[in-house]
Amino acid sequence: MNIFETLESEVRSYCRGWPTTFDKATGALLYDETGKEYLDFFAGAGSLNYGHNNPLLKRAVIDYMLGDGITHSLDMNTAAKRDLLESFEDIVLRPRGLDYKVMFPGPAGANAVEAALKLARKVTGRESIINFTNAFHGMTLGALSVTGNSMKRSGAGIPLVHATPMPYDNYFDGQTPDFLFFERLLADSGSGLNEPAAVIVETVQGEGGINAARAEWLRGLSDLCKRNGILLIVDDVQMGCGRTGPFFSFEIAGIEPDIVCLSKSIGGYGLPLALTLLKPELDVWEPGEHNGTFRGINPAFVAATEALKVYWQDDKLEKSTLAKGEQVDRELTALVESHPDVPMRAKGRGLARGLQFQDAALADQVCKNAFEAGLLMETSGPDGEVVKLMPPLTISDDELEAGLSIVAKSVKGVLA
Amino acid sequence: MNIFETLESEVRSYCRGWPTTFDKATGALLYDETGKEYLDFFAGAGSLNYGHNNPLLKRAVIDYMLGDGITHSLDMNTAAKRDLLESFEDIVLRPRGLDYKVMFPGPAGANAVEAALKLARKVTGRESIINFTNAFHGMTLGALSVTGNSMKRSGAGIPLVHATPMPYDNYFDGQTPDFLFFERLLADSGSGLNEPAAVIVETVQGEGGINAARAEWLRGLSDLCKRNGILLIVDDVQMGCGRTGPFFSFEIAGIEPDIVCLSKSIGGYGLPLALTLLKPELDVWEPGEHNGTFRGINPAFVAATEALKVYWQDDKLEKSTLAKGEQVDRELTALVESHPDVPMRAKGRGLARGLQFQDAALADQVCKNAFEAGLLMETSGPDGEVVKLMPPLTISDDELEAGLSIVAKSVKGVLA
Amino acid sequence: MNIFETLESEVRSYCRGWPTTFDKATGALLYDETGKEYLDFFAGAGSLNYGHNNPLLKRAVIDYMLGDGITHSLDMNTAAKRDLLESFEDIVLRPRGLDYKVMFPGPAGANAVEAALKLARKVTGRESIINFTNAFHGMTLGALSVTGNSMKRSGAGIPLVHATPMPYDNYFDGQTPDFLFFERLLADSGSGLNEPAAVIVETVQGEGGINAARAEWLRGLSDLCKRNGILLIVDDVQMGCGRTGPFFSFEIAGIEPDIVCLSKSIGGYGLPLALTLLKPELDVWEPGEHNGTFRGINPAFVAATEALKVYWQDDKLEKSTLAKGEQVDRELTALVESHPDVPMRAKGRGLARGLQFQDAALADQVCKNAFEAGLLMETSGPDGEVVKLMPPLTISDDELEAGLSIVAKSVKGVLA
Amino acid sequence: MNIFETLESEVRSYCRGWPTTFDKATGALLYDETGKEYLDFFAGAGSLNYGHNNPLLKRAVIDYMLGDGITHSLDMNTAAKRDLLESFEDIVLRPRGLDYKVMFPGPAGANAVEAALKLARKVTGRESIINFTNAFHGMTLGALSVTGNSMKRSGAGIPLVHATPMPYDNYFDGQTPDFLFFERLLADSGSGLNEPAAVIVETVQGEGGINAARAEWLRGLSDLCKRNGILLIVDDVQMGCGRTGPFFSFEIAGIEPDIVCLSKSIGGYGLPLALTLLKPELDVWEPGEHNGTFRGINPAFVAATEALKVYWQDDKLEKSTLAKGEQVDRELTALVESHPDVPMRAKGRGLARGLQFQDAALADQVCKNAFEAGLLMETSGPDGEVVKLMPPLTISDDELEAGLSIVAKSVKGVLA
Repeated sequence: MNIFETLESEVRSYCRGWPTTFDKATGALLYDETGKEYLDFFAGAGSLNYGHNNPLLKRAVIDYMLGDGITHSLDMNTAAKRDLLESFEDIVLRPRGLDYKVMFPGPAGANAVEAALKLARKVTGRESIINFTNAFHGMTLGALSVTGNSMKRSGAGIPLVHATPMPYDNYFDGQTPDFLFFERLLADSGSGLNEPAAVIVETVQGEGGINAARAEWLRGLSDLCKRNGILLIVDDVQMGCGRTGPFFSFEIAGIEPDIVCLSKSIGGYGLPLALTLLKPELDVWEPGEHNGTFRGINPAFVAATEALKVYWQDDKLEKSTLAKGEQVDRELTALVESHPDVPMRAKGRGLARGLQFQDAALADQVCKNAFEAGLLMETSGPDGEVVKLMPPLTISDDELEAGLSIVAKSVKGVLA
Repeated sequence: MNIFETLESEVRSYCRGWPTTFDKATGALLYDETGKEYLDFFAGAGSLNYGHNNPLLKRAVIDYMLGDGITHSLDMNTAAKRDLLESFEDIVLRPRGLDYKVMFPGPAGANAVEAALKLARKVTGRESIINFTNAFHGMTLGALSVTGNSMKRSGAGIPLVHATPMPYDNYFDGQTPDFLFFERLLADSGSGLNEPAAVIVETVQGEGGINAARAEWLRGLSDLCKRNGILLIVDDVQMGCGRTGPFFSFEIAGIEPDIVCLSKSIGGYGLPLALTLLKPELDVWEPGEHNGTFRGINPAFVAATEALKVYWQDDKLEKSTLAKGEQVDRELTALVESHPDVPMRAKGRGLARGLQFQDAALADQVCKNAFEAGLLMETSGPDGEVVKLMPPLTISDDELEAGLSIVAKSVKGVLA
Repeated sequence: MNIFETLESEVRSYCRGWPTTFDKATGALLYDETGKEYLDFFAGAGSLNYGHNNPLLKRAVIDYMLGDGITHSLDMNTAAKRDLLESFEDIVLRPRGLDYKVMFPGPAGANAVEAALKLARKVTGRESIINFTNAFHGMTLGALSVTGNSMKRSGAGIPLVHATPMPYDNYFDGQTPDFLFFERLLADSGSGLNEPAAVIVETVQGEGGINAARAEWLRGLSDLCKRNGILLIVDDVQMGCGRTGPFFSFEIAGIEPDIVCLSKSIGGYGLPLALTLLKPELDVWEPGEHNGTFRGINPAFVAATEALKVYWQDDKLEKSTLAKGEQVDRELTALVESHPDVPMRAKGRGLARGLQFQDAALADQVCKNAFEAGLLMETSGPDGEVVKLMPPLTISDDELEAGLSIVAKSVKGVLA
Repeated sequence: MNIFETLESEVRSYCRGWPTTFDKATGALLYDETGKEYLDFFAGAGSLNYGHNNPLLKRAVIDYMLGDGITHSLDMNTAAKRDLLESFEDIVLRPRGLDYKVMFPGPAGANAVEAALKLARKVTGRESIINFTNAFHGMTLGALSVTGNSMKRSGAGIPLVHATPMPYDNYFDGQTPDFLFFERLLADSGSGLNEPAAVIVETVQGEGGINAARAEWLRGLSDLCKRNGILLIVDDVQMGCGRTGPFFSFEIAGIEPDIVCLSKSIGGYGLPLALTLLKPELDVWEPGEHNGTFRGINPAFVAATEALKVYWQDDKLEKSTLAKGEQVDRELTALVESHPDVPMRAKGRGLARGLQFQDAALADQVCKNAFEAGLLMETSGPDGEVVKLMPPLTISDDELEAGLSIVAKSVKGVLA
């Protein structure tokens, strides 16, 4: 038994599916201690959109550190934070015509969600939140209460309340009109639904199985919220920062959520950073009413700023992501079509892609085969029935092709 | 208006008390953009026990990054994580005869607390937690529910339940026996107290006003928990890692909590890291039942490992902290004694020290004066009535003396 | 201002729609202090199925009282209680092949519901309850949490949690298959629905607007519960005791709920009595784990026993109720058909009937007109859009006809 | 096995301690089916202050029924209800200078409590309630959440929240000043105590073990509530209607609670009736926001009115109750003093008296002995360690003496 097995809690999980010890990583490649190379179709669960140890970002971070730039500053004003705020305004918000204030809620996506829920409740004076089937928003108690996975929910040890799940887009395979149930419950004063403070939604559900909501469904949701005085929170922690093509995943729908949660790749380099964006009129916080020790990690600010400057001053990354996404989709679709007798489905948007099996054991085996062949992929979906493909956005065409080739072989291996 | 005022949320707080823009920092010194130097009696709210940009830790981190050591790995096995686990076992646990498993619950102290609460509830099948008056455990919903501050609690927007506050040590200035109320409620099957899963306690309450519990009170609490089948959680996020002298703040009491929360200075360099330590028999987690994107930040592992190796292989830091703490206490006590007509009180343990005023406005003004004179200190306590002195443990004697001199002048300034 | 206006709380309600002072009552007739006679299509909200001051029941009660039969006995054994239990077994349970234990949960329907919810949670170890849109189960906190009406829910002053509303039969006018949403949420381990302890349902929703669930829907619900290990609670407080024809309203579906709530007319004479019936294998209560001061009102036991003996030893009342119900339905249907341009709908089952308007103001005016003409009816439904016809089951044909004639005139009055 | 054992739920309790079947009852006497006579020191748990089948009240009720006075009227205006309201104002409120509005919340004490809690929360906009150790307020979910008994609480099947227990008068045997903990938690904005909407208190805890709060403690509580903007609810369900001497048990303290709960003996004859009294300025209810089917039982109104007229137009009953209470106390005290080696304690006020043992098994055996000897008494207190003496207030001197004689023998029997 190694020290991971003897000393680390049983709660550890990724190390079980990928039983090796990693050491180094660059771009779309990881290396274990034996030097074995792995292609990365996982990207830190969406935290590494710009690849491992991206050299441009690394340079910026190391220069900052070498110059003794302040590392840890809570919410003091720092030069690095100013650079980030200015870049975020100039490169992200203003060109998109978005008017948000920026809150630093703590280091992780769950903090961005916790702050969003608090704020929605404080602003509206209501407690109830509408979430969606197969949502994933985090593991802290507030975020967990709006997360769908029953195993993770049971970890809370208390009844999770104040959230009511509504069917996500296409939950009934088109059998019912969008929002049929939700609209009716809201309109009916006898429905028993507690009046919601907010709706929280992912535009593409990553953990939930790479379920991509249609733009018209997102617009319908936004309209529904406006008509009913409900705040709309988009959790763009995994799908933001270009994962689906545009910087914000909701841009395709032309909507403006009241609150937006960002984390994972916003920090650029895999360093913890999270932002909660809020409409200026919602900024009713008292100073310090929400805080957190690690809400000012300046190396993450530096990497985040550099990532915005390098990748988001033009539309090259967005176009490349869309193109690569199309390529992944084509190959997954071809795989599906070449096995007409096996129920499979290609899913997703941009570079958040999935291959859904009916039998979760097959998906699991595909990932195992891929690992053996040197490719990291995880499953997602309620039963782990979806093979999830999320390479870094900066992956090269050759690497992408090599990875897809392993995917194809891995799938064929389980279907043989 | 600068961009912090126009773009950042009103929730920002430290920047209000320290109205400048910081840029660089080393050891116990920060520098703002104009080059003005500030002595640091704040230490990142306890995250910078080894000082800003500690050169030994910086070297290790930068070397790791330059070598393309993997940065972000969730809970995969990595070489850097193995080093940390081994060092933690060899340097921290084994010499102290402590038997814990280690959980990586996410990047921040609140994650360590959320995981601890979940686990205590899961293990016991009970929901209720006992916390203490003026406790601070974090801002996520689970952690906030066991936090005392009413302004912060009101931010939740929902009623915070499942926690019952008990009086902290000396809450009644010695009028009542320790645990009088708590013991009686537990013993009385008609008391109406829900049977607790766990007690969560800080050995010294930092945010609560530098209230230091006596060793015998901590022992009494530990005994009470054992007798009643209640798990004892020590939140050592702020007071651990040597802040009060020994590595764990509870060592002075000779107790062994069931669960221990670490964060802040465990990462060494101000990079987000948190650990939840749990007795092996409590390790009932399902794989992945608690998770988090930023629970594997390898530069933080590297800095943490280096900090353990540099500072905790012998007792030099511990002794130095105790000595410096005594020095601070002597000077605060002298200040108190030199103003017999002003109700003040010197408080604390190790290098977690406080000067309590009756009038919170005085404490606030002391910190303002100190800032003007180039010293960073914050207030704590329910009304901000305590000036909080928490320099880096690695502060030099001269710096400490210089800081204390500013403290003395700042106090005299408000009392003049 | 009279004393009702000066001394009684603003919460009073029925006295507002029927602004007179009642004095005497017999059968289907009430009399106010001026001697004005009112036909009763309200029947104590379902508590007076056998009419006001039913002479047979009155005789039994008065004889019992004159003989100094014990009046108030909590859950001591009494002769009157034995008679009730024996009659309930012989006349109600055994002939229907039903195997239940009987619990006396307190005097009112809400107590029967509170006990049912407690028991379901205790047995299953789960907290969550599924209720239905437009459900009404009572005003105490447990019962209110599964009640739909938003005005009544807001009276709680705390967030009502642990209940999730599902669409009642025909909630979407046949657009969706039965239980589409419910089944899918249960089957999907990522849905975010807390695993339910129980479903609570009314077979006909009285307060909700006289919505009658189809027998096949009830069977579907029963099957769904069995398949998923969820307890089925039928709240037969208003629709039991023959209101819809058979003694239990669920008999038409051939189902056997796990728990049944009875109150209102079970006491026969309008005296408070409630029963919770439970499958023997669910009887896990500790002695006294649920109690209540008024759970042993012997005059109510006596009236209840007499009512069973008089009305339920044969099927005359059931047949008569069904026949009268058909008559009401015919006349309501004729009313609807004679006004093809006004959206109206005849609803209900047995002698629980409703006339639904699109415009709630019309329904309200119909009841006002009827009151002026000497007929008591209330509205129900989320917005009060349904005129509710619930005469005593023992109403004479002439009285019923006279009442329906007033209904017709009252409707025509508002549509003129 | 009799039908109680085969058909009635295991939750039944009083029948276990008193294993016979009762049939008739008058005044302070009950008779079982064999004709055996029992003296009643139980009085329907406080519901039969005027004795079983009190002939004056019986006459009034039967006359009303024979005249076809309306029985069941919800909250319609009725002549019988007017009589009750007028009598209550004339006989109870006005002479005491009390200004309350009267709400009919449903048939039982728990309904009065549920309505009180709802109203306090609605008025204040806060959720949290302060209750006291060993409180008993009822079994419905709201009332149960402020009840102390752990066995009864566990019956809820969900975590009971929104209530925090404070120590009742003399909980620490005089070791601490009154309200030490409560005042401190309120004054300390960092205490973690949710700001309370209301305090709910019994002046003498019946179920809790006949704990009588001192008048000065009650005054202190009232002052504390006023100073802190907290509503004071006195639950006088068991101790009101003269049980301790005066009509309201809080009269001895000269306080005016914001809300008062009455039930049990308010109906006079053991018929279900409950009232919630509220200061006029608190009457913010919407019509129908709280309701209940059995909130208008006119025979109970008639008996209640008659009881007020017979017993409360002068101070004879009050004086007699106090005198009899003194007699009981003397005899209990003599018992205690005659066994100096057995830890016993005489407790209580008026005719709510208790004899507390250290060993609950002794108290239980005393009641068993008494039953054998023809006297009904129950135990109370968290472990059933208190023998509870609550005869009808109308018990004759001879009966009282006879009962006390049995008590003495029963005690001696267990101590022999």
